[in-house]
Amino acid sequence: MEITFLGTSSGTPTRTRNVSAAALRLVGSRDWQLIDCGEATQHRLLATPYSLRTLSAIFITHVHGDHCYGLPGLLASAQMAGRSEPLTIVGPAGIRQFVEAVAQHTELYLGYEIQWLLPEEAHLAQTGSGLKVQSVPLSHRVESFAYRFTEPEQAPQLLHEKLMAEGVPPGPLWAQIKAGKDVTLPDGRVLQASDFQAAARRPRSVIISGDNDDPSRLTTACDGTDVLVHEATYTQAVLEKVGAGPQHCSAERIARFASQVGLPNLVLTHFSPRYQDSADATTSIEEIRQEAAAHYHGRLSLACDYASYRLDRDGVLSVQA
Amino acid sequence: MEITFLGTSSGTPTRTRNVSAAALRLVGSRDWQLIDCGEATQHRLLATPYSLRTLSAIFITHVHGDHCYGLPGLLASAQMAGRSEPLTIVGPAGIRQFVEAVAQHTELYLGYEIQWLLPEEAHLAQTGSGLKVQSVPLSHRVESFAYRFTEPEQAPQLLHEKLMAEGVPPGPLWAQIKAGKDVTLPDGRVLQASDFQAAARRPRSVIISGDNDDPSRLTTACDGTDVLVHEATYTQAVLEKVGAGPQHCSAERIARFASQVGLPNLVLTHFSPRYQDSADATTSIEEIRQEAAAHYHGRLSLACDYASYRLDRDGVLSVQA
Repeated sequence: MEITFLGTSSGTPTRTRNVSAAALRLVGSRDWQLIDCGEATQHRLLATPYSLRTLSAIFITHVHGDHCYGLPGLLASAQMAGRSEPLTIVGPAGIRQFVEAVAQHTELYLGYEIQWLLPEEAHLAQTGSGLKVQSVPLSHRVESFAYRFTEPEQAPQLLHEKLMAEGVPPGPLWAQIKAGKDVTLPDGRVLQASDFQAAARRPRSVIISGDNDDPSRLTTACDGTDVLVHEATYTQAVLEKVGAGPQHCSAERIARFASQVGLPNLVLTHFSPRYQDSADATTSIEEIRQEAAAHYHGRLSLACDYASYRLDRDGVLSVQA
Repeated sequence: MEITFLGTSSGTPTRTRNVSAAALRLVGSRDWQLIDCGEATQHRLLATPYSLRTLSAIFITHVHGDHCYGLPGLLASAQMAGRSEPLTIVGPAGIRQFVEAVAQHTELYLGYEIQWLLPEEAHLAQTGSGLKVQSVPLSHRVESFAYRFTEPEQAPQLLHEKLMAEGVPPGPLWAQIKAGKDVTLPDGRVLQASDFQAAARRPRSVIISGDNDDPSRLTTACDGTDVLVHEATYTQAVLEKVGAGPQHCSAERIARFASQVGLPNLVLTHFSPRYQDSADATTSIEEIRQEAAAHYHGRLSLACDYASYRLDRDGVLSVQA
C-alpha cells in the first residue's frame, strides 16, 4: 500500500504545508482513494500522478473546513476532466449537506453520480482494488472518524517444491490443489490440498485518522494494523497551554498510545502552523519529532506534503524517493 | 492603483494558473480589495504581501465555483489570523447563501462581522482608501457583474509660483485659498481662490469584470475608465466550436469592443486551460494574444498569476518587476 500526503497542516495552509488530504492506493492498482479533502487538494494533485478520473472513493473524517473545503472544486474539476463513473463519498451527514448546499447555491451540476455513505456504512464502499474499509468513531469537537483500510485476502500459495518432491509436475493437479481440492494421483495416492498450501500472507492494514483527542478509541482497530496515520497538532506543553477545547492530540499522547498497542509504524501529521520546517526556527517541527520519539520506539515519521510512503510485504513502512 | 492577479484560469486550475482572483489597492494604502475568490486564493496570497487582516472588502462577480470556492477557507483563515474588524462582501445573493450554508454545515464560526452587500449596493462598500465602487450587470449563464473602482477625488493643487509672483508667501493665506476661499491681502487686493488653483487631476478608474459574453454592457462604464480587466476565455474559432452555451467572450470580441470605446489599457484573463503558457505548445496562449492584438491597438496585456500591474498618474498601465 502507498500513502501520499497532500496536506499536513492543521487549520490553515502555510507556505510549505496545505490543509489535510492524503491519497491511498494498492501498489499496482489503477484506482485510488482520497482521505480528507482540504481546500486546494486538487491543486496538490496536479503535481502527482493521481487523476480525478481514476479516483474510486473519498473518505472524509469530519466536517471541519480544513478537511473538506476542497471537495466542491475537486468534484467540479473531475467533471471538467470528463469523469462519468460514479464516485463514492463516505463521511458524516454534514458532508453531504455541505456539498449539496454548495452545488445548489453555485449552480454546480455534476455529470456523474455520487454514492453517499455514512462512516458507519464505510464497509460498503467499493474500491476497484478490493480494499476493505472500516470506520472508527473518535473523540473531537464534532463527530470525527478514522478509516481502516485492509488489503484483500491473499490466496494461499502452492508449495511448489513439495509438490515436485512428491512427483507432481505443474499441470491441472496444481490448479486443483490451489483451489483447495484434495487430489488422487495416477498411482492411487491421495494428496490433502492443505498439506501443499502455505498459509496466506496476513492482509496488511493502514488506519488514517481524523482529529481526535483520545487515541484509546483506536485500541481495538490497531490490533493487527501496520500503520497508523494520526494527528499530533501540538507538543504536550502547547496542548496544555491551548487547553482541552480544540480536542487535539499532542505528540506525547499519540506516541504513548502507539507504544502501548505495539504499533509498528506511526506517521504523524496535522501540525499546528506554529511549527516551522526549519530545524533552527524558534518553534520547529523537530519539537514534535523529539517529543514523539521520547515515547515511541517503533518506526516514526512526520509527514510532509508530497511525501509518499510505501508499506512493504514485511510490514515495514518507508518513504519513497 | 495596483492590480495583482492571483488566478487567471477559467473553470479549473492548471499547474501555472489558479482560478479567478485579483487584489486591488491604491498604492500607498494599507487596505486592499479582493475581486473574486476562487479555490486556493488564500494559498496564492501567502506568496504576496497582502494580509487577511488588512483586506477591506471582497467583490464577487458571480456564483460559479471558480470565482468563489475559496471564500469559506479564506474567511476561516482570516479568523485564525486574528482578524476582528468587520469585512464587507459584495456579491449576488447566492454568494451569501453559499457562505452561510457552508458555515452552518461545517461548524464555521467567525469572530468578526461580515457586512453583506448586493452588487447594486456596491457603492455603499467602504474601503479604507476611499475607492468608490460601482457595479455593472453583465451577460452570462448566471447573474454576473463587473466592478468599477475609482480613486477618490483629488483636491485642487495650489499654483505656488503664481501666488509667489503676487507676493503671497506660504502661510495662512495659502491654506484659505486651497480651501477655496477668496482672500483680501494687507494691501487691499482681493485674490479669487479659483485663479490660484490648478484643476484637480481626473480620478483614475479600473473595471474588473466577471464572466460576460456581451462587452457592450460595459460601454457606459468604460467612459473615462483607464483599465478594463476582462475575460477572453477562448479565441473566436474555439468559441464558435464550443457554441454560445457557456456565454464567454473571445479575444476578438473583447478586443473589438475595447477599440470601439477607445480604452487605453486592456488586460485579458480567465483563459481556458487548453491554452498553454509555452509559446511552442500545440495550443498556446499566444493565440489569444495575437487575436486580440489584431483588433486592439491600445496597451494590451495577458495576465498571468502573481503578475502585478500599476497604473501611473498619466493613465499608463505597466507590469511590475
